[in-house]
Amino acid sequence: MSARTGMLLVVSGPSGSGKTTLCRRLADAGEARYSISCTTRAPRPGEVNDRDYHFLTRGEFVGRLEAGEFLEHAVVHGHLYGSLKTEVLSHLAAGIDVVMDIDVQGAEQIRSCADPDIRRAAVDLFVMPPDNEELYARLSGRGTDSAETIALRMSNALEEMTHWGRYTYLLLSATREDDYAKLTALVTAERLRVSRISPA
Amino acid sequence: MSARTGMLLVVSGPSGSGKTTLCRRLADAGEARYSISCTTRAPRPGEVNDRDYHFLTRGEFVGRLEAGEFLEHAVVHGHLYGSLKTEVLSHLAAGIDVVMDIDVQGAEQIRSCADPDIRRAAVDLFVMPPDNEELYARLSGRGTDSAETIALRMSNALEEMTHWGRYTYLLLSATREDDYAKLTALVTAERLRVSRISPA
Repeated sequence: MSARTGMLLVVSGPSGSGKTTLCRRLADAGEARYSISCTTRAPRPGEVNDRDYHFLTRGEFVGRLEAGEFLEHAVVHGHLYGSLKTEVLSHLAAGIDVVMDIDVQGAEQIRSCADPDIRRAAVDLFVMPPDNEELYARLSGRGTDSAETIALRMSNALEEMTHWGRYTYLLLSATREDDYAKLTALVTAERLRVSRISPA
Repeated sequence: MSARTGMLLVVSGPSGSGKTTLCRRLADAGEARYSISCTTRAPRPGEVNDRDYHFLTRGEFVGRLEAGEFLEHAVVHGHLYGSLKTEVLSHLAAGIDVVMDIDVQGAEQIRSCADPDIRRAAVDLFVMPPDNEELYARLSGRGTDSAETIALRMSNALEEMTHWGRYTYLLLSATREDDYAKLTALVTAERLRVSRISPA
């Protein structure tokens, strides 16, 4: 009775919500495997291919999309993003939890996925910045972007934040430690979910 | 956005699963209000009226049942048990979480409750003893009952255990501390549930 299939923890939230840090920390603690997304955007300073993202050309991305290799994909700020099935399916079947840091479009595709194994595995969380002032401070904090870029990022974040009601769980970001404690509680609880227990 | 209605945490499990201890501890820690059940069975040594149960006569119980005062009720080992609406509804509306230690029949009534506020509030957990040997040891451990009584209790427990698949969450009992940590994780996670966030 105790054998279980893995959960697919889908985490969304605007830039500045801290969602990526949360997901990475969960994976670093060995609690879940981090699903590395593919993207056609250029690497930022410090980003490493096949660690932060699989960086693909537009041609490579579209080829793999046409080959049906993506579980979900989205266009964000003019760039393609997507999650490969190979990052997810075999792990879930083996009872390994997978955490996926994706945008609201991708999360919607996971929710409406035709594959019953994915629907059974998936649980989604929206991470919300504490307030708009704090969000602005976080988006400005990188110190590498123009006021115009920050304003655009703020506008995008505010739009993304309108989608929280589509998620099962909402985490109002407070401190890093408090946020992470809530995330691990969610993972602990979801591991008790009867619907992911495999028939003996 | 952060105002939320309370959760109604329904906990079932056979005698010997440790469910009552878990629920009481959650309430004693101030994490939830314990819904005191009514029963027509006689108090056991040490049990206090209006703390452990509301002890009612059969006539009183049936009168309150006919008056529609119960949220759920069940017959267990020939005795009536039930949860009064007054123990639950006003607290949920005020955002106070309520924990309810009830049997599988009562839990089924909560799941099929016509009241949308109850359905939205309710989440259910089945607490399973680690194995039958440990269960037998726990049921024998009180040292106050005959072998026949223990055998009957064991038989009832095994029947009750067949219903775990109807619950959302399953807790396989291990140690008291481990069980309680999982229960509090579940409560923390369920407090993030979007469906209990009140419209602003």
